[in-house]
Amino acid sequence: MEGAKEKINLNVGGIRHETYCSTLRTFPGTKLCRLTEPHAHSMYEYDSSTKEFFFDRSAELFGYVLNYYRTKHLHCPADTCRSVLEEELAFWEISDAQLAPCCWLKLNNKERQPEEFNMWDENELADDQCLIVQMERRDFSWRARWQPKIWAIFEKPYSSLGAKCLAVVSLLFIIGIVIIFCEETKAQFDFFAGNFTIVSHSEVTHIVHEPYYHQAPYLLHLELFCVLWFTFEFSMRFCFCPDKKKFLKNPLNVVDFLSLFPVYIELFTAKQIQKMPTLGLWLGSVRVVYLLKLLKISKLIETPLILRVLSYTLKSILREICILLMMLAFETLFFGSLFFYGELLGIHPSFTGDLHFTDILICFWWALITLTTVGYGDIIPFTTFGQVTAALAAIFGMLTIIIPIPIFLVKFKGYYAIAISKQKLKMSRK
Amino acid sequence: MEGAKEKINLNVGGIRHETYCSTLRTFPGTKLCRLTEPHAHSMYEYDSSTKEFFFDRSAELFGYVLNYYRTKHLHCPADTCRSVLEEELAFWEISDAQLAPCCWLKLNNKERQPEEFNMWDENELADDQCLIVQMERRDFSWRARWQPKIWAIFEKPYSSLGAKCLAVVSLLFIIGIVIIFCEETKAQFDFFAGNFTIVSHSEVTHIVHEPYYHQAPYLLHLELFCVLWFTFEFSMRFCFCPDKKKFLKNPLNVVDFLSLFPVYIELFTAKQIQKMPTLGLWLGSVRVVYLLKLLKISKLIETPLILRVLSYTLKSILREICILLMMLAFETLFFGSLFFYGELLGIHPSFTGDLHFTDILICFWWALITLTTVGYGDIIPFTTFGQVTAALAAIFGMLTIIIPIPIFLVKFKGYYAIAISKQKLKMSRK
Amino acid sequence: MEGAKEKINLNVGGIRHETYCSTLRTFPGTKLCRLTEPHAHSMYEYDSSTKEFFFDRSAELFGYVLNYYRTKHLHCPADTCRSVLEEELAFWEISDAQLAPCCWLKLNNKERQPEEFNMWDENELADDQCLIVQMERRDFSWRARWQPKIWAIFEKPYSSLGAKCLAVVSLLFIIGIVIIFCEETKAQFDFFAGNFTIVSHSEVTHIVHEPYYHQAPYLLHLELFCVLWFTFEFSMRFCFCPDKKKFLKNPLNVVDFLSLFPVYIELFTAKQIQKMPTLGLWLGSVRVVYLLKLLKISKLIETPLILRVLSYTLKSILREICILLMMLAFETLFFGSLFFYGELLGIHPSFTGDLHFTDILICFWWALITLTTVGYGDIIPFTTFGQVTAALAAIFGMLTIIIPIPIFLVKFKGYYAIAISKQKLKMSRK
Amino acid sequence: MEGAKEKINLNVGGIRHETYCSTLRTFPGTKLCRLTEPHAHSMYEYDSSTKEFFFDRSAELFGYVLNYYRTKHLHCPADTCRSVLEEELAFWEISDAQLAPCCWLKLNNKERQPEEFNMWDENELADDQCLIVQMERRDFSWRARWQPKIWAIFEKPYSSLGAKCLAVVSLLFIIGIVIIFCEETKAQFDFFAGNFTIVSHSEVTHIVHEPYYHQAPYLLHLELFCVLWFTFEFSMRFCFCPDKKKFLKNPLNVVDFLSLFPVYIELFTAKQIQKMPTLGLWLGSVRVVYLLKLLKISKLIETPLILRVLSYTLKSILREICILLMMLAFETLFFGSLFFYGELLGIHPSFTGDLHFTDILICFWWALITLTTVGYGDIIPFTTFGQVTAALAAIFGMLTIIIPIPIFLVKFKGYYAIAISKQKLKMSRK
Ligand SMILES: [K+]
Ligand SMILES: [K+]
Repeated sequence: MEGAKEKINLNVGGIRHETYCSTLRTFPGTKLCRLTEPHAHSMYEYDSSTKEFFFDRSAELFGYVLNYYRTKHLHCPADTCRSVLEEELAFWEISDAQLAPCCWLKLNNKERQPEEFNMWDENELADDQCLIVQMERRDFSWRARWQPKIWAIFEKPYSSLGAKCLAVVSLLFIIGIVIIFCEETKAQFDFFAGNFTIVSHSEVTHIVHEPYYHQAPYLLHLELFCVLWFTFEFSMRFCFCPDKKKFLKNPLNVVDFLSLFPVYIELFTAKQIQKMPTLGLWLGSVRVVYLLKLLKISKLIETPLILRVLSYTLKSILREICILLMMLAFETLFFGSLFFYGELLGIHPSFTGDLHFTDILICFWWALITLTTVGYGDIIPFTTFGQVTAALAAIFGMLTIIIPIPIFLVKFKGYYAIAISKQKLKMSRK
Repeated sequence: MEGAKEKINLNVGGIRHETYCSTLRTFPGTKLCRLTEPHAHSMYEYDSSTKEFFFDRSAELFGYVLNYYRTKHLHCPADTCRSVLEEELAFWEISDAQLAPCCWLKLNNKERQPEEFNMWDENELADDQCLIVQMERRDFSWRARWQPKIWAIFEKPYSSLGAKCLAVVSLLFIIGIVIIFCEETKAQFDFFAGNFTIVSHSEVTHIVHEPYYHQAPYLLHLELFCVLWFTFEFSMRFCFCPDKKKFLKNPLNVVDFLSLFPVYIELFTAKQIQKMPTLGLWLGSVRVVYLLKLLKISKLIETPLILRVLSYTLKSILREICILLMMLAFETLFFGSLFFYGELLGIHPSFTGDLHFTDILICFWWALITLTTVGYGDIIPFTTFGQVTAALAAIFGMLTIIIPIPIFLVKFKGYYAIAISKQKLKMSRK
Repeated sequence: MEGAKEKINLNVGGIRHETYCSTLRTFPGTKLCRLTEPHAHSMYEYDSSTKEFFFDRSAELFGYVLNYYRTKHLHCPADTCRSVLEEELAFWEISDAQLAPCCWLKLNNKERQPEEFNMWDENELADDQCLIVQMERRDFSWRARWQPKIWAIFEKPYSSLGAKCLAVVSLLFIIGIVIIFCEETKAQFDFFAGNFTIVSHSEVTHIVHEPYYHQAPYLLHLELFCVLWFTFEFSMRFCFCPDKKKFLKNPLNVVDFLSLFPVYIELFTAKQIQKMPTLGLWLGSVRVVYLLKLLKISKLIETPLILRVLSYTLKSILREICILLMMLAFETLFFGSLFFYGELLGIHPSFTGDLHFTDILICFWWALITLTTVGYGDIIPFTTFGQVTAALAAIFGMLTIIIPIPIFLVKFKGYYAIAISKQKLKMSRK
Repeated sequence: MEGAKEKINLNVGGIRHETYCSTLRTFPGTKLCRLTEPHAHSMYEYDSSTKEFFFDRSAELFGYVLNYYRTKHLHCPADTCRSVLEEELAFWEISDAQLAPCCWLKLNNKERQPEEFNMWDENELADDQCLIVQMERRDFSWRARWQPKIWAIFEKPYSSLGAKCLAVVSLLFIIGIVIIFCEETKAQFDFFAGNFTIVSHSEVTHIVHEPYYHQAPYLLHLELFCVLWFTFEFSMRFCFCPDKKKFLKNPLNVVDFLSLFPVYIELFTAKQIQKMPTLGLWLGSVRVVYLLKLLKISKLIETPLILRVLSYTLKSILREICILLMMLAFETLFFGSLFFYGELLGIHPSFTGDLHFTDILICFWWALITLTTVGYGDIIPFTTFGQVTAALAAIFGMLTIIIPIPIFLVKFKGYYAIAISKQKLKMSRK
């Protein structure tokens, strides 16, 4: 039996700790307190030769546990892993809610994020695994043998020489169709300008109207040629893709699909366009989809790790960005309305100039252009109240630019550190 | 009795430390120095069998204390909690002012902020606790039973199906009144434009004047309908709120209250408006308060933690932002004045064009628009001196955008780390 | 004598380390290697009963030193203080150049900065110490007794009620003179506009000329009144300042001094101004110095710590900012020249419009306004080459805004951490 | 032989660890598991008197290894060096892939970067080493003796008084030629303006044409004088440079070389210019190369460490910046096209004003100016759809400014920490 000022020896993982029994009695009901009870020798492993209790636990954290009994404050070493601390405290029957506030930040909080990152990693590998899975089915049909190879030729530009050539050809066609698109806008602008002249001078119409289909027919033929190639490429990729559903979910493939239509529609509706010139313009505008094909270049460039982390970060804070954009929209409405009434109320009755705006929508437009600090200068406040509104809008705009920076930065840094660690681990395993 | 080169054994928490007596005599007057005195054996706990002094303290920090005697410099381990260090040093009778400057930053400085954050947390929970407190009074009156339920329906959109429906209805009314507000501006603009024509051509007045009340009477009726709903909602929420004072302190409720008036006033003063058209415009401008109701949408969206931390950070650096805005105001005055005199002095006597400005206030306006890099271009320097002023203003403006970033970032990071830790702790307790 | 696979015991500060003699022989010439030599027992303190060498050193770092012998790589624990490591390595006769590169960043590099910060701290306290030094001289003359009190009244607005009143009065006078300054600009503008009319219509001169001294004579009287107060205040402060040299080195006092002249000069040269109107304008422009008096408000506000750190950081990176501004100047010259030649060479021969610019200086002005993303729009490129130049300038401008951010941030964070630590230490000492 | 609940003692570097044999059997096949096998006493060093196995390894990390057996999770202390951990785990025959995810970030990841920085450091020293290498050849020819001295005079402005003087003279010449360049643009503008008059009024030609060679012949002579000096300087530096290839690879030297030609060409083609005025303008535009000589000033200023790190960081993220600029280019194309069709489709048929743009290229120009938030205001959307496009472009532009900040910051911080550490190490070695 041990008294008040009697000492007790604890052998935790080979390291001897020594303390007073009274110290251990500070927190009744915990395992360490029970060691001071009379029948403890039989309950816990007690070596009567060295007069020590033996526990097969980490010695380092036990130092902090023992200090908790001595000072009544539970601290932990720097950068402790949360799970380690929890396990150790559970063993000693201490609640982790006792941890001092100053040590909350010392806990290693990075358990969650790696999971997210694993998910991300897997998405990237999904394609390859898809191929492997199919390989393992081992049905030696024609399709089963050729599908992965053709898929690789179309999708993995660095996999073989043929794939490289195809990627270059495809790239040239994309650049080509963008140039054709730009050239066609000229013909469309002329057509449109001519069309407007119709409204005023109804006679000159047909002469101006014609150019659209006669000046640039070779453009349409070139475009058709490109689109035929795209049709071939898309159908090949669609046929030989390992997973049709996934294929159609990819926005780039949807763009590829949509970009096939404008030309065919134009060919079949040539006569309608002659009558309804706006239709031609609509068909032209749909061709903006060709530009989106430029995003496929990103497949040819090996994106650096840091940019992949960047895009992942952007995705992860999408919700926050949306809320900030809603805030911006609200500011636009608010400052726009203030500007509208400010200008109307403040203007001098003898003012004879033009008011620049005739609508509150124009005021909203002005507010947004001021908030983003673009400041075209097409609408300018004339009255003092309007100028004060503009000044406030400019200052709020400046703040709005600054506000998302810390969010972005904090998230990015966390993800980047994980990505670098994962890359190192991967490299060291190879 | 121990001599100069004699060794002394110290058993601190079970770990044996060994040093020379001469080392301990480095700092006279401290507890460790006194151990070397002849009658120390009787004053401190001395085990004559092992020839050790025993102290029931942390062994880790004692290593640093002992090194202080050896090297005369007091260091501490990385990320030491301030309170732990202070307690330990107090036990060994060493002043914490002795800590080497290189270790100041190692101290864990996060004690204060958690308190602030606790306060913030409690504000959020206040509503719920209010309810609970009232529940505990247990006066089974009609009001006592129904009040929390009705309050929850109006204030907690996710609490029940009824609350959800009410939130959607309320949201539709808010969007409705914003659309009505925008439509009314058109009528007001026509009214105002017509009104101005009065000044010049006094006859056309009444014909143009009329539209305001005849073109859009259905708008006023729709608005009245919305405001009736708001009146009902506000009175219900006011009647059944758990704390009237707190309710009225909330700016959103003040906005709700103010938004009830414009329509009623307009109905009662219709005749006065016919005579004093500016009054109509003033009543219109007061309706900007409807837009502020849009901020209530924030209650429907569950704000992510990171944005709550952001808004808390913004509140905590409000004072710094104000001082920086004062700095901006000073720069506006300074560059505006420089621009005014620069343009006047530098302009060539034979200049016949328009000077763009007639007032120093316009120069201040120009300076602010340049400092915020909006740059409308309505006022432009003509002289070299004015252009140099503009260039300086633009550069200072750029710097002014950059300057608050670090303040914002440093504070945000600190709060975010605490918030994440608190959230983790909360989750682990559940 | 010890052989190859024989073990050696080292008692470092009470902790027993055990290793092979062969391990210690890895680095010949070091103290630990010499322990394996035959006559080591007599050279170092050897306890033949426990067969241990005893060293009165830190046990923690010795673990790393011993690992250096085992693995041939010298590492160190996280956040080690540089001075501690150096002292320990010197004792064991190991060069600190052996530290592995991965551990360079673990060294605590914050020794220098605290000194800088101490310096900064002392500057702030200098005034008070000045007073104390004078107090200690104990010459009970009239001046010696009153000087500190009067100085405190004028310079320390929070020291007494009288000082507070004086500060408020002084502030009102400053705001007053700024308003007077703004009012005077109106008279000056009229005067200037009238003066210009002289050039074209020589008869109307005198009628327009007069207003300057007749319309606003009360302004001049008010200004004189304010300046009389400033004269009184400045002379008092100059007489009773504890250190005349330091007083005159403070830019705010120089501004105070300069702001006394314009009014007196105007009064004495009234007749000359009547003849040389430009002189009046020059005297007006010198009054911009009144605005600088607004900076004295900063004395009345207790600046938060974070802003003091901010201004200290800005001072410390002044040289870097200057070099970046030189870079901006170079970009201005370069893009301005490119724009000049691009527009001239690219313009179509049949172009009949106005070229917007007649000088390369205007092109430099354009370049700077584009680089700072202000973009007034007064000068706009017409040719494709000019537009490409403008686009490049805009992108470089964007980058120029971003580039100084990290410098600023890194420095600010370092200083802020030190400032917070110092503040905590100061508070804990009180 | 040891049983299930039997304990085992491990003496690792002098520190005794104690655990159950069953604990060690958790991971079969590892070295620690084999200790529990019957013949372990003969395989590993076993001291039968103390009943301990002895291992000459680090005791600190062994604590974590033992905890791995106890808890089945492998953790590591904060900021562990990767190489240390790997070596230790290899000794205990544990795979480092077992490391818990929460500890990935604790690994010290800074091994790679120092190598990069070493490379950078060496580049800087290359010149000096070049000199030293040549010195060591010890061929006492005239060139061998004088080459280093002359090279130092021309290239190292701080090496001697002569070098300083030469640097100042060279600087004056550079500033001189920049001023001359600016002056010449005036003559060229007049010449150009006159030339344009030719097109419209063919008679006035020769009178206006002449000024170019008669008004400013002294400028050409001054320019010739400067260029003669540059020719001398360049030839000296080329003759005495230690490595010709390296010399020509330096872009600054290429600029020096190119800047010699314009004057000589102009002198030899004076007559052709008289006939082909555009040639004169082309020769003028080539002189922009003079401005690039201003970059040589950077050699005279000792760049602060922080700016050298900045430029190194910029170089290291060049690829990321390029990809972001490609993204910006894509956004330009996309928003430009949207704007083009949006304006054409949305415009009201009765619109009679000017459309601002006649080409899709102008729309791309507008898009870029809006994305960079310059916003000249020369092209402004008239239709609602165009305004929405502009608003989106402005918001995307704002985001584009913010996106590269974190990349830049993260890289900069890493490099700066290394640079500071290296500098400290260098200083401590001196
Ligand atoms: K602008
Ligand atoms: K702008």
